[in-house]
Amino acid sequence: MQADLICVGNEILTGLIENSNSGFLARRLWSAGIEVRESVVAADEAHAIQAALNRALEHSEIIIFTGGLGPTDDDLTRDAVASALGLQLVLDRDWLEKIEQFFKQRGLKMPENNSKQAMVMEGATLLENRAGTAPGSIVTWNGKLVILLPGPPSELKPMFDEAVAPVLKEYNRGNLSRLKTLKCCGIGESTLEDKIKSLGNWELPPISYVARGYEVHLQLKGRGSAEEAAAAIEKAEKRLQKLLGDHIYGSDDDTLAGKVAELLSEKNLTLSLAESCSGGLLSSLLTDIPGSSNFYLGGMVAYSGEVKIDSLGLKRSLLEQEGQVSEPVAAAMARGSRAKFKSDLAVGITGIAGPEGGTAQKPVGLVYIAIDNGQDCYCKKLNLGGGRLAVKERTAQVALDMIRRDVLGSARL
Amino acid sequence: MQADLICVGNEILTGLIENSNSGFLARRLWSAGIEVRESVVAADEAHAIQAALNRALEHSEIIIFTGGLGPTDDDLTRDAVASALGLQLVLDRDWLEKIEQFFKQRGLKMPENNSKQAMVMEGATLLENRAGTAPGSIVTWNGKLVILLPGPPSELKPMFDEAVAPVLKEYNRGNLSRLKTLKCCGIGESTLEDKIKSLGNWELPPISYVARGYEVHLQLKGRGSAEEAAAAIEKAEKRLQKLLGDHIYGSDDDTLAGKVAELLSEKNLTLSLAESCSGGLLSSLLTDIPGSSNFYLGGMVAYSGEVKIDSLGLKRSLLEQEGQVSEPVAAAMARGSRAKFKSDLAVGITGIAGPEGGTAQKPVGLVYIAIDNGQDCYCKKLNLGGGRLAVKERTAQVALDMIRRDVLGSARL
Repeated sequence: MQADLICVGNEILTGLIENSNSGFLARRLWSAGIEVRESVVAADEAHAIQAALNRALEHSEIIIFTGGLGPTDDDLTRDAVASALGLQLVLDRDWLEKIEQFFKQRGLKMPENNSKQAMVMEGATLLENRAGTAPGSIVTWNGKLVILLPGPPSELKPMFDEAVAPVLKEYNRGNLSRLKTLKCCGIGESTLEDKIKSLGNWELPPISYVARGYEVHLQLKGRGSAEEAAAAIEKAEKRLQKLLGDHIYGSDDDTLAGKVAELLSEKNLTLSLAESCSGGLLSSLLTDIPGSSNFYLGGMVAYSGEVKIDSLGLKRSLLEQEGQVSEPVAAAMARGSRAKFKSDLAVGITGIAGPEGGTAQKPVGLVYIAIDNGQDCYCKKLNLGGGRLAVKERTAQVALDMIRRDVLGSARL
Repeated sequence: MQADLICVGNEILTGLIENSNSGFLARRLWSAGIEVRESVVAADEAHAIQAALNRALEHSEIIIFTGGLGPTDDDLTRDAVASALGLQLVLDRDWLEKIEQFFKQRGLKMPENNSKQAMVMEGATLLENRAGTAPGSIVTWNGKLVILLPGPPSELKPMFDEAVAPVLKEYNRGNLSRLKTLKCCGIGESTLEDKIKSLGNWELPPISYVARGYEVHLQLKGRGSAEEAAAAIEKAEKRLQKLLGDHIYGSDDDTLAGKVAELLSEKNLTLSLAESCSGGLLSSLLTDIPGSSNFYLGGMVAYSGEVKIDSLGLKRSLLEQEGQVSEPVAAAMARGSRAKFKSDLAVGITGIAGPEGGTAQKPVGLVYIAIDNGQDCYCKKLNLGGGRLAVKERTAQVALDMIRRDVLGSARL
């Protein structure tokens, strides 16, 4: 079974926004056993949308559009698709009411334009939109599925998972998942590949290696019938788990922050943070996880030395002797945070994110991350490259992994 | 003048890697006055590559391929394109020597496969590759340019800037930049469009509206000769500035956080933050900006009530009477933060990011953001939808805009 993706929008064609929808949809479709034949970005023009649709209908059973469902004059997907399929657009009064309610709840009057979003193709199933006013829709046409989804990822993603995935599963019955991603961290791509190759010539399914910053993802592809594919993946997963142990933190949609949240919640442990060079990023990654208030008590972003002294109780003499970016300061920040927030675990981070502030002895990218778990306070030193954002990002990732390993009891990388 | 982009690779079609090349190329082409007509991701299969090429040749003067130039069996772009254009592949001995050197310098013997990369289309101009072994190439075919570039961004980007951009400039002589993006916030997409339409029938260049969460971007497209296009954009920009005032925060590569950083630095003002439901995201956005330590003193992420009392000096009775999510608590957090960090400005944020924790009176998405600027302490109430991440994101965006307007003296939205 094949799908074509058609992302509509001049803002993507001109590079104004990145097209994150096509990657998201491709991964979701793969997991459902559906292969993407071609992925197109089309301009906000009826003829471009219709040409892409006609091509897709020649080859694929499933055609997914994203974007062009907004209220403005350049939102043309609805009209262009309906006209190409020979379907009428009809006013959906229930949806119109929803749009009016959406604005009312925000204390606003619905602009006239928005009523256009309640015009839907005859016979279409409408899909709820938790974050906006455009309905998604699915229409069956000559046995094929044509699916229209809104462009903003915050609207598209929950809509896909809640409303489209079940329909596809039903449509593509009998196909199991043929793809599994194992997510590793704390080990480099080539080391990982060498380790796996060292297993020798046993029957592994094809593995793709994808390095993503601190993480490496292993994508296992099951072949053959649904049952054979699933069995091959399961067998490979067991072998790799045994080989790689705690380097594998999860699979498929797991994230490192999500895994840390899960572990802390399971073990009833609380956490606090004292961040300097990571600037609140670690805190933000953890609070992205629903329920993080169960384990996360709070954090300090201590950018200046004075704040480290006033708020975390660091001694001025320590800062003067060791310098703000040093192992003893990271450790004192962790201890200070643990005492201040009364948490089970605390992390202290200090470093130089750049581009300014580096010296020969303490270059940009030097970072210390300390954990105080009440019994033990230990620190990791990093020398990172890649610019300010990369330093923040990598620092947060390593800190998450340190928390994970501390809670697992496998501690220190 | 139009271009078609064809990115070849199963790893993109399956979502294993994001396609960052097409956005990069689109932005570069726009700046050179070349419009992208369509952008396609094609599978590693000769017929898919050739079908995309034939379509592109029907519409565009410039066709750019990325990917599929590697040494392995699934790298097919070279062969498929040459055969579709009816061109021979010939061995380039100089390039073969370069590849051998590349491996030699790394202490390796060239694998036999790699010699394939020295096979190039007859008549093509080869493009240097600073980071890999695949040459880029440009061939003129019936007056059109067909350009092959390697897939890895680290190879493609410098190759484009150094070798392709000058060729395109020559090919598209006389065209200046014809695109300008004005970035707005604090105003909805439809309201903005209504306002702009209310100007009446004056000669506006075509405008695309792109809603990005709290922001709306206006993309102005100049038409006609280079001079006419530039003049039309300049004129439109002036009209829109007058119409929209502080709703326009910047243009092109500006970001809201970057603009706030710029304003605070210019006016020598310092900032501190007390975040609850935004969980450190606002802090992280501001510390993404180089030099943020000049104005940003630090922040608290006060997730629990106890932390708000202990660290920000809130009265327990206030929390009990008003509840943690309330205007007085947001205001007290801003005042507490300003006092604690001794900053000129401080922001206090409290709200319910969800999915848990909402009630009928205080639903998920209710957020209060307060600013204390020393003279005045005022608060904005939001009712946000879209799930936890959207609430965090929107909260941080609105807070940035409040800081921006406070510093500009236009204050309260």
